[in-house]
Amino acid sequence: MNETIDTILNHRSIRKFTKQPLSDEQINTIIEAAHSASTSSYMMAYSIIGVTDLEKKSQLAEITNQPYVKENGHLLLFCADLRRNTLSADNQAYEQMKTNLENTEHLLVATIDAALAAQNAAIAAESMGLGICYIGSIRNNIHKVDELFHLPNHVIALFGLAIGFPAHEPDQKPRLPQKAVYFNDNYMEDEEMKSSIQQFDRTIEAYYQQRSTNQRLDSWSNQMIRKFSTPKRLDVTDYVKKKGFNKK
Amino acid sequence: MNETIDTILNHRSIRKFTKQPLSDEQINTIIEAAHSASTSSYMMAYSIIGVTDLEKKSQLAEITNQPYVKENGHLLLFCADLRRNTLSADNQAYEQMKTNLENTEHLLVATIDAALAAQNAAIAAESMGLGICYIGSIRNNIHKVDELFHLPNHVIALFGLAIGFPAHEPDQKPRLPQKAVYFNDNYMEDEEMKSSIQQFDRTIEAYYQQRSTNQRLDSWSNQMIRKFSTPKRLDVTDYVKKKGFNKK
Repeated sequence: MNETIDTILNHRSIRKFTKQPLSDEQINTIIEAAHSASTSSYMMAYSIIGVTDLEKKSQLAEITNQPYVKENGHLLLFCADLRRNTLSADNQAYEQMKTNLENTEHLLVATIDAALAAQNAAIAAESMGLGICYIGSIRNNIHKVDELFHLPNHVIALFGLAIGFPAHEPDQKPRLPQKAVYFNDNYMEDEEMKSSIQQFDRTIEAYYQQRSTNQRLDSWSNQMIRKFSTPKRLDVTDYVKKKGFNKK
Repeated sequence: MNETIDTILNHRSIRKFTKQPLSDEQINTIIEAAHSASTSSYMMAYSIIGVTDLEKKSQLAEITNQPYVKENGHLLLFCADLRRNTLSADNQAYEQMKTNLENTEHLLVATIDAALAAQNAAIAAESMGLGICYIGSIRNNIHKVDELFHLPNHVIALFGLAIGFPAHEPDQKPRLPQKAVYFNDNYMEDEEMKSSIQQFDRTIEAYYQQRSTNQRLDSWSNQMIRKFSTPKRLDVTDYVKKKGFNKK
């Protein structure tokens, strides 16, 4: 064990921050950390927007329905970005690049690049005693977020990252048992997986009944069935295509 | 600065490892680190396969054309995985879940979940003095990789992660200037971005001419134009759909 691993294993999402803003030095370190992550074929296919404009923060808080999107030490928006890779291309070269820019392979490349950078930012922040929370709910109104930040073609908004000085210390939520996410040499057989999940469901039922706030009767499986049964963010499909990704 | 940030900023991809395998304890710590990352709406939408079978490693080395895929301390395969979320659903519930399972939103969710977990694994490994290299080139023959590991529906192979004891110490490759990836409140204007990229192209030209091995005349922009001009991994689009992702 070492400090880094302690930081990583001690992660919990922080959803309440003090009013103290991050210093410029803290922000700079976090961005440099993000920028040091691995990147596919040197593409560096992501961008980060620091959100300081209060009006924009308010609008994002409304879209996401989360107060900590407005009230935090700093807010980052992570984007998948293939635009820079095209900027020096003339029209002819750009036309030749389009098949790759628009295929699913390169949606994956840019999404993965952005997520690797974000997780570096998250760990760097946590190593400094700050708390973080990922904000996927910016995709509740992805077209609006795109407009707010004037994202050009080949750039899509993926998620936010709220960072700040923690104002609460939530419990760590149980995770699936390691054996249900990590296998050797083959994907796990259905029957074995079902039994792992049933075991986890019992753990979660007990957790929800015993935790200090917001007690309820629920299992992980039932939560997932409920979550997936209501169609969600269907416009992300069109948004991504409209921005020049995932068209073929 | 602290040890964690030092580890993150000191990252370079390692492509040559000693023969020493990771200990079970090291592997366990790395997987626990992966498993502690943030996850969208508690979905935990990823799986990790540890590859120990020598025949499978050889086949992956052939697909990726990278010797370090075979010769390393341990090899992980990261998958986007929505399967577990469906396993307790009866037929009727599963039908109701399908719209979400198959939309682009949930391809993003699962890809991001897998990448956040992977970057935790990468940093945990590096913090222990190990080296890592991401392996996107498993997607050179994604259908074959899928078969090798018997991945079921709603599980797709994304990338590998080779981990091991470093047998070389490569230079750190220059990155785009921070101002070209991090902006405040709005995406950067094209003219300013072009000028940042041109400046970076001069840096890269000098780097390629001066580095200790593999000197050449090249710029970042020209590299990108070349890379994107040859259609690549077009079958990833069909693969992803065939596995029940990104269908609408």
